[in-house]
Amino acid sequence: MTISIQWHLAWVAVDWGSSNLRAWALDANGKVLAKAGSERGMLSLSASDYEATLLTTIGAWLPAEGHVPVRICGMAGARQGWQEAAYLPVPTRLDDLARGAVRPAVEDPRLEVALLPGLCQHPDEVGRRFDVMRGEETQLAGLTAREGDISGPVCLPGTHAKWARLEAGTITRFATFLTGELYSLLAGQSVLRHSLKDGQGGNDLSEPGCREAFMAAVQEVAAAPEQFASRLFGLRAADLLDDGLLDGGLPTGQARGARLAARLSGLVIGLELAGARVGLAEGERVTLVGAETLCARYALALESLGIESRRLDGEAAVLDGLGLAHAAMIHDAHTP
Amino acid sequence: MTISIQWHLAWVAVDWGSSNLRAWALDANGKVLAKAGSERGMLSLSASDYEATLLTTIGAWLPAEGHVPVRICGMAGARQGWQEAAYLPVPTRLDDLARGAVRPAVEDPRLEVALLPGLCQHPDEVGRRFDVMRGEETQLAGLTAREGDISGPVCLPGTHAKWARLEAGTITRFATFLTGELYSLLAGQSVLRHSLKDGQGGNDLSEPGCREAFMAAVQEVAAAPEQFASRLFGLRAADLLDDGLLDGGLPTGQARGARLAARLSGLVIGLELAGARVGLAEGERVTLVGAETLCARYALALESLGIESRRLDGEAAVLDGLGLAHAAMIHDAHTP
Repeated sequence: MTISIQWHLAWVAVDWGSSNLRAWALDANGKVLAKAGSERGMLSLSASDYEATLLTTIGAWLPAEGHVPVRICGMAGARQGWQEAAYLPVPTRLDDLARGAVRPAVEDPRLEVALLPGLCQHPDEVGRRFDVMRGEETQLAGLTAREGDISGPVCLPGTHAKWARLEAGTITRFATFLTGELYSLLAGQSVLRHSLKDGQGGNDLSEPGCREAFMAAVQEVAAAPEQFASRLFGLRAADLLDDGLLDGGLPTGQARGARLAARLSGLVIGLELAGARVGLAEGERVTLVGAETLCARYALALESLGIESRRLDGEAAVLDGLGLAHAAMIHDAHTP
Repeated sequence: MTISIQWHLAWVAVDWGSSNLRAWALDANGKVLAKAGSERGMLSLSASDYEATLLTTIGAWLPAEGHVPVRICGMAGARQGWQEAAYLPVPTRLDDLARGAVRPAVEDPRLEVALLPGLCQHPDEVGRRFDVMRGEETQLAGLTAREGDISGPVCLPGTHAKWARLEAGTITRFATFLTGELYSLLAGQSVLRHSLKDGQGGNDLSEPGCREAFMAAVQEVAAAPEQFASRLFGLRAADLLDDGLLDGGLPTGQARGARLAARLSGLVIGLELAGARVGLAEGERVTLVGAETLCARYALALESLGIESRRLDGEAAVLDGLGLAHAAMIHDAHTP
């Protein structure tokens, strides 16, 4: 018996960030044929390293002849990346990112590479402020590729969490919160590290009381964001003083550090939500785009402030967004 | 000609913190005869190292015979220090710290050592929360030694900034803000480090525009503390995008990083003040206790929120506080 393997590679999608890259081989219908990845992100590469890194990662997918379109979003298009794809200013339509793509010169004739642009925002009289994104705009484009010209608030949690406002397929404004980085620094390097369990990664809130501690912290900081820096030290003080005898007191042993880590996470995410909810209309539902565990945590935080949410998978979003840009480039190539 | 040097050592004052110790030789009138110091703070010492470290630092001051009282405040009295001097709970009179002193056993008969306690606070129905201090209580005692049974808000800026409420010589409550540590982590280790000049230490606000940028940041975060985490990322975005053409835009070159460092300092201190001013009565003046440069920065931040302040030198305060405790111990020793 012979097994016939279908391999009709049409194009390659790449999300190339600061610390790693992820690549997908796709057929003409957008079906994923294969995945690959590398830990060589923008921070570890100089401009001349990109082509070789790409070939190491996806070379096995390439045909002997012909060329393959490779569509790349993320930090590879930064000034310090492969080649700068200058930011497009908001407001901008999300199905129009291909307009800002640049095509770095390559030596291997089988590669036809385009780097998608990020977005920038300048201050104006309606309250926009300086801001930038690179990578998340492609996930937002993926959201519109799936759902058409949608409107509403979208949150992409992460090291630098993004909140974007969409209006009929256009991104009109956005804001970045340093949330993930703040959590990592506080949990891993501040005096609080002595009191936390699983400092760097956070915990999954599955231990008894962690979910409640997380939600209480979100509500507390949302009600009094000006107390953020004192609530931080309060974690340490509670660890030193709380004998667990009062209602709601800390447990002893391993559970203590997990509880305090849940509380720190709630304080940091709660501060973000306190800022982001200022831009929400009454009753508006937030679309979360990202990985399941982190989005579940954000959904819980939003719920504890009475805000509804739903989730779109981050990988699906970036693939759809790159696909939208790829389709636009094919169309442009065939338009005289 | 013979020069006669007066050396009537009556006692030794020591402020022994996490990362260093400072010692003063004093005569019976509280006049400083000599100073000494060491980089061997609590974090680098185990309990059995303290006596030897003390002798290395102040041994030259000790007489051949008799014994010298050594009065120590700070982290040397922590559980992880020389010997634990258990926290006194607030409210407590500040002239009564000696009541909680402990006397570690020493081998050198010339030493007569007392470690002063820190203070702790437990949650209650009038809004107190878990908190601790070790060292600052002695500076507060020094303030009352100078000025009698005073009342009012006192701020001790630093890595873990303290705000205390005094009522007729009693400390009734306090709160700790993680301000200095937050600044160091953000300036030295976050993505913002790429945009700042003089990341670790802050700058002195002397470059053109820095004072104004600092004050504007204080006002901005005090008006909208919930935007703190997005204002942080905004520093990075401004550095990437601001061409300086707009009014109030960033300068280029060296001045750019100094301006952004001033703004970061304003955001972090402003967040603290936003929280601390909730506890201030209308028109109340804040007493700042600490080093001149940092207190000047706090005074400027307070001024930009319309709050008056005055300063007491931190070294003078700790010496007076240790002196107050020393006097109380002498008195107790002579009371049958």
